[in-house]
Amino acid sequence: MEAIMIYMPAVLAIIGLIYMWVKRSWVMKQDSGDGKMKEISAHIYEGALAFLKAEYKLLTLFVIGASIALAAIAYFVPTTHYLIIIAFIFGAFFSALAGNMGMKIATQTNVRTTQAARTSLPKALSVSFGGGTVMGLGVAGLAVLGLTGFFILFFNYFMGGEWTNTEQMTVVLETLAGFSLGAESIALFARVGGGIYTKAADVGADLVGKVEAGIPEDDPRNPATIADNVGDNVGDVAGMGADLFGSYVATVLAAMVLGNYIIKDMGGEIISEGFGGIGPVLLPMAIAGAGIIISMIGTMLVKISSNDAKESQVMRALNIGNWVSIALVAIICYILVKWMLPATMQMEFFGEGLKEISSMRVFGATIIGLVVGGAISSVTEYYTGLGKKPILKIVQQSSTGAGTNIIAGLATGMISTFPSILLFASAIWASYAFAGFYGVALAASAMMATTAMQLAIDAFGPISDNAGGIAEMSEQEPLVRERTDILDSVGNTTAATGKGFAIASAALTSLALFAAYVTFTGIEGINIFKAPVLAMLFVGGMIPVVFSALAMNAVGKAAMEMVQEVRRQFKEIPGIMEGTGKPQYDKCVAISTEASLREMMLPGLLTIGFPLAIAFIPMIFGMNNLAIAEMLGGYMAGVTVSGVLWAIFQNNAGGAWDNAKKSFEAGVLINGEMTYKGSDAHKAAVTGDTVGDPFKDTSGPSMNILIKLTCLIGLVIAPILGGHTETDIPNQEETAAVYNSENDNNIISKEVKMEKTTENDYVTAYVVVTKNKNGEEVIETFEFEGTESEVRKKVEDIK
Amino acid sequence: MEAIMIYMPAVLAIIGLIYMWVKRSWVMKQDSGDGKMKEISAHIYEGALAFLKAEYKLLTLFVIGASIALAAIAYFVPTTHYLIIIAFIFGAFFSALAGNMGMKIATQTNVRTTQAARTSLPKALSVSFGGGTVMGLGVAGLAVLGLTGFFILFFNYFMGGEWTNTEQMTVVLETLAGFSLGAESIALFARVGGGIYTKAADVGADLVGKVEAGIPEDDPRNPATIADNVGDNVGDVAGMGADLFGSYVATVLAAMVLGNYIIKDMGGEIISEGFGGIGPVLLPMAIAGAGIIISMIGTMLVKISSNDAKESQVMRALNIGNWVSIALVAIICYILVKWMLPATMQMEFFGEGLKEISSMRVFGATIIGLVVGGAISSVTEYYTGLGKKPILKIVQQSSTGAGTNIIAGLATGMISTFPSILLFASAIWASYAFAGFYGVALAASAMMATTAMQLAIDAFGPISDNAGGIAEMSEQEPLVRERTDILDSVGNTTAATGKGFAIASAALTSLALFAAYVTFTGIEGINIFKAPVLAMLFVGGMIPVVFSALAMNAVGKAAMEMVQEVRRQFKEIPGIMEGTGKPQYDKCVAISTEASLREMMLPGLLTIGFPLAIAFIPMIFGMNNLAIAEMLGGYMAGVTVSGVLWAIFQNNAGGAWDNAKKSFEAGVLINGEMTYKGSDAHKAAVTGDTVGDPFKDTSGPSMNILIKLTCLIGLVIAPILGGHTETDIPNQEETAAVYNSENDNNIISKEVKMEKTTENDYVTAYVVVTKNKNGEEVIETFEFEGTESEVRKKVEDIK
Repeated sequence: MEAIMIYMPAVLAIIGLIYMWVKRSWVMKQDSGDGKMKEISAHIYEGALAFLKAEYKLLTLFVIGASIALAAIAYFVPTTHYLIIIAFIFGAFFSALAGNMGMKIATQTNVRTTQAARTSLPKALSVSFGGGTVMGLGVAGLAVLGLTGFFILFFNYFMGGEWTNTEQMTVVLETLAGFSLGAESIALFARVGGGIYTKAADVGADLVGKVEAGIPEDDPRNPATIADNVGDNVGDVAGMGADLFGSYVATVLAAMVLGNYIIKDMGGEIISEGFGGIGPVLLPMAIAGAGIIISMIGTMLVKISSNDAKESQVMRALNIGNWVSIALVAIICYILVKWMLPATMQMEFFGEGLKEISSMRVFGATIIGLVVGGAISSVTEYYTGLGKKPILKIVQQSSTGAGTNIIAGLATGMISTFPSILLFASAIWASYAFAGFYGVALAASAMMATTAMQLAIDAFGPISDNAGGIAEMSEQEPLVRERTDILDSVGNTTAATGKGFAIASAALTSLALFAAYVTFTGIEGINIFKAPVLAMLFVGGMIPVVFSALAMNAVGKAAMEMVQEVRRQFKEIPGIMEGTGKPQYDKCVAISTEASLREMMLPGLLTIGFPLAIAFIPMIFGMNNLAIAEMLGGYMAGVTVSGVLWAIFQNNAGGAWDNAKKSFEAGVLINGEMTYKGSDAHKAAVTGDTVGDPFKDTSGPSMNILIKLTCLIGLVIAPILGGHTETDIPNQEETAAVYNSENDNNIISKEVKMEKTTENDYVTAYVVVTKNKNGEEVIETFEFEGTESEVRKKVEDIK
Repeated sequence: MEAIMIYMPAVLAIIGLIYMWVKRSWVMKQDSGDGKMKEISAHIYEGALAFLKAEYKLLTLFVIGASIALAAIAYFVPTTHYLIIIAFIFGAFFSALAGNMGMKIATQTNVRTTQAARTSLPKALSVSFGGGTVMGLGVAGLAVLGLTGFFILFFNYFMGGEWTNTEQMTVVLETLAGFSLGAESIALFARVGGGIYTKAADVGADLVGKVEAGIPEDDPRNPATIADNVGDNVGDVAGMGADLFGSYVATVLAAMVLGNYIIKDMGGEIISEGFGGIGPVLLPMAIAGAGIIISMIGTMLVKISSNDAKESQVMRALNIGNWVSIALVAIICYILVKWMLPATMQMEFFGEGLKEISSMRVFGATIIGLVVGGAISSVTEYYTGLGKKPILKIVQQSSTGAGTNIIAGLATGMISTFPSILLFASAIWASYAFAGFYGVALAASAMMATTAMQLAIDAFGPISDNAGGIAEMSEQEPLVRERTDILDSVGNTTAATGKGFAIASAALTSLALFAAYVTFTGIEGINIFKAPVLAMLFVGGMIPVVFSALAMNAVGKAAMEMVQEVRRQFKEIPGIMEGTGKPQYDKCVAISTEASLREMMLPGLLTIGFPLAIAFIPMIFGMNNLAIAEMLGGYMAGVTVSGVLWAIFQNNAGGAWDNAKKSFEAGVLINGEMTYKGSDAHKAAVTGDTVGDPFKDTSGPSMNILIKLTCLIGLVIAPILGGHTETDIPNQEETAAVYNSENDNNIISKEVKMEKTTENDYVTAYVVVTKNKNGEEVIETFEFEGTESEVRKKVEDIK
């Protein structure tokens, strides 16, 4: 049993994918309704494909460019292997594939949900949630399959499928980081580009259609209406999917890296503990694999029986599925932790030395992750939920105009950081107290285990939203719309909590990556009392702010292009307003697609360029590598702290404005008077929503990618900066690379070791392996002692 | 000459204060105009006094409470002396006195400026700038006099006026920190309370007066109109004055602390280098003192001769004064650095060991400070200046409604963090590279040296603004208003750059305090790879966001109270609308005053409570003091990084919205059409300005106080956390306190010393001084060796 545990997660992922395929076939077999419905749905489907096509074009160029950069890194850094390129390409490919599948099923489930709603509400729920399930299991299944598959591959390639030492495992995991980097790069395109797309199409369609031409929303005569509907899928389905795909992979990877360091802390070998001596490395994968099966079970529990069910019953059905999944994850974590980890482990705690940690403390950390994941979702729901105090306050403030509405919304978003950050800080503290940074990473892993379930719930929202739109456009009887409205309303709530889950997972993932980065580079922590590190903390803190501004401006620009195209079509296509001329939907889709992908270049460049600049520019000027690593660490911390804050602020402010506006639909009591849509207060609330749209759908969610990608880039270039290349034993091929780089033919290798003896005195051992005249190897050792700065200088000279 | 250098800064401050008094007499001798003018001015003056009275009441309570807390600290911590209470009270008193003087002169200069404008423009400028000069020199003079006076006092009291050792100098400077804490506490009241006051009165007056009653702005029938005018002085004059008073004092103090550590790094004594061996400690005071005389000279250069001068000529006059001051500071820094510092110094650089630093590198750091101070002001001017690209963009976006105007304004504020933070990070890096954190502190000191000049320019703005209002209300001929308008327009520009200067100075001050904190506690830097430290970095980052939200909400609440009072007066006072019944101005002033002071309690509590909670709650749970110190350091860094970002974002967004709105007064070109006040685009711009008002006048500027006060609180409680109590030699009284606290009558004292030997092994020396039977002292020493955690446990046991 123990021997096959390395293959188990991949097997579970495949089971998940098979179930997904079955579910997909079932959904596809559902009736897709009459001609009009089919036509609308087909347009949305084609639009989504058009976006994917354009995205893939750009993507291919990006993947080629990034692969060349990775090849350069692999060339210069002995511990980075060329296989990282393969891992990167597959990471990108799997993520794109998952997005493709998700988009396709979502755009095909919508019309089937409308049709099912003509029969009954339980049927409509099972169809729409079925589509969500396909999406969720597809994303999670591919993530786990890809990651574990490549791990098996690299573990066999580099280590012959058997434990050798932590240094070689580090090489395996560094190479595996390429897969994660590939996935997260696609997420940048999907999340940021998708965010720009959806709002550009939305604003563009509204501005010309509703305001200038005076036709209602979702009117098929509006050339941008399909782009608008596609946008919902591009942003909420594909964007969210790619985001969580990236988080899932990165979290598991980071936990594996930190697991490897436990083995190191325990003396470099724990083979006697079973699982081939790699229990702590396998555990995160095992939890991820089990999570897929658990999510499968969870999705099966989501059903209602009554045709007269209301929102609360639908919500309860979703909650039951979700809570059961979380409870099952807790149970399986207990079992797996107890089974796979040594009963007690030694872990190095910074500044506190080695500590004995029982495996039950690791279980404690996973519970922290599950609890905090749920709690942050609840906080999000409180600050953005209809009928809750913060929303009612914004509604009240709308009565004195748009200005006070905006101030109230901004203040709500800002205040919401208080409980969120305190929860989050407690999670870091507690999970670290339980089991060090391995605990933090496993808290994230446990939280992410239900990703498939979370995504199913997330994707169900936009599917129901689209279903309602199709019902409206194809003029179904009111009952159908009522049923889809119930689903849509529940979907709005889950959309907000889903964003809370996404940022919580991104934040914990980033921390785990951050910890992995520090261990990879071998630096002694990140001391912000060093001025260059502090300066980079400031620069890092600034990046999310500027990124958000760029994303917001991008929406404005892209929307303007859409406006011009719609105006052109209204002018140039004869009979378009009478319904006789067919609007060129694809042109609008193309504009939205191209504009969004183009406009995300600058924020993307910012994300990728800054960490590279911080690493390589000082290197050119001859700065010490470890000092650079520390600076980059400061930058990563700055981006993460500021990014999490701005994500919570923007998501919650946007969500709050949105629901404050929606409150007017049912009517609200302001100063003792019932106030409805069309009132001045409502108009003020609409202004707030306009501001909130890019906040919650573009810049806010993009923060997730920004912080994860920043930390991943750091992790991938860590070996270049890292001190561990000096003490690690590289495998055959890489050692050869070191040999070749030497000019003196007699010198086989040079190795420098530094050892701290007292606070200021270092001993450096300088080992040279040369050939003597007979071709035999001769090992010579020189020692040198001095103050830290003297030794560092000496080491640089020797190198 | 060298011997009297310790007294020189105080003498220069007194010269500055004498010049201020002369200038004040000159201003007061100016004609204050006719009856109507006098009446309006008298109302504003009385309102200002009413605010001061209420503030002092609250202040007294606060000072008493804080003094008790400080007494408790002094009781428990041997190295904290009771004199810190005296220093604290005087710091508070001097700051309040400076604010009092500034408010009084500003509210008396306004009417004299109006009267002078009836004669000529040059005369009007010289009167209004004369008032500003009184304010500037008063604040700066009192700051330098207070700080240097107390230094002389404590230096004589603790050290007998002669160098003994760095430990005793640390006691002197720790006690002196009380003065700075007192000053900054008052700044909290003045800046935050003032910010709430000015916007509450503004919004309250507008909402009932302009909107409901339909009377024009500044109409004397509006009971809130005086409160509104008082608000300008409370916020822009007193708030800014207290802010810069606090920065000035804190910067010099922090530089002195770091100067003391240079002496420590150089072996603990540099008496042979002259200046009684305290050159590095005296230098920051000397620069501050010289800065007062330089500012005096600078203010004398501000004059115009032509009665037909335009804005550009007035601006040039101010700029000449400013630039000459800055150039003179550079020259005096060169002279003082060369004269007062050893030609080469040893400084400990983190992780790099001791370095030889020539005094010219310290001069380099001061140049960095001067350059960056100017550059950040320029950046501010670019992003908020009339006619500049960012403003034009917001104007364009106003044409599509309030929503797009808001997005554009937010984006502008966010983008403006890019150059500001890069400049700021470069300043940290470069000044540190030149001369360590002493370099950073001296960069701040050099920048702050022209504080008096900066304040003169700042205060000149609201004086001219008020002068214009008085001209309007007292119905002067148009020429008078034209002249005051020229001054007012220049004042608007200087207001924006002044905010840039204030945040830059607050940020550098905080960093210097942060560095002083680390050296005070004796921790080995702040390692954010420790999870509790990282958690506190997150919490610290959240505080400025929540603080800003609270401040914004406070404005809303206070404004609502004002609205109710104005409504009541309109209803209850007979003949008020006809001008026969006199409005109760004082009631509105009282409401604004009380509401503002009450509403600032919660943000104030947040500011003061969080660092105390972080320090003391873990202490109760028995956490290691050094670990707490590191956590608190992480918190301070989080507050500073996030606070600087949010200050820049909010100030610049608010300034940009304001000027976008003002652009419509002269007319703007939107889509090829000239658009003016009253257009839809203008209305959208007004909405933006409503949002921007609390941003730029309340929450944004409050960030300065938040970050400085946080770091100061850290500095004051540093000795409680610090490891240096274990190795420092306390003076007589404090040693006595330690003796008394022992239960065993034979034990005279216990002392624990920890010494690092290798990375993980510590040696701890445990010294007990006891009396033998003959009453003679016996010294016993125990040694103990082990891993870090073992030793730490042992140390805790011994304690």
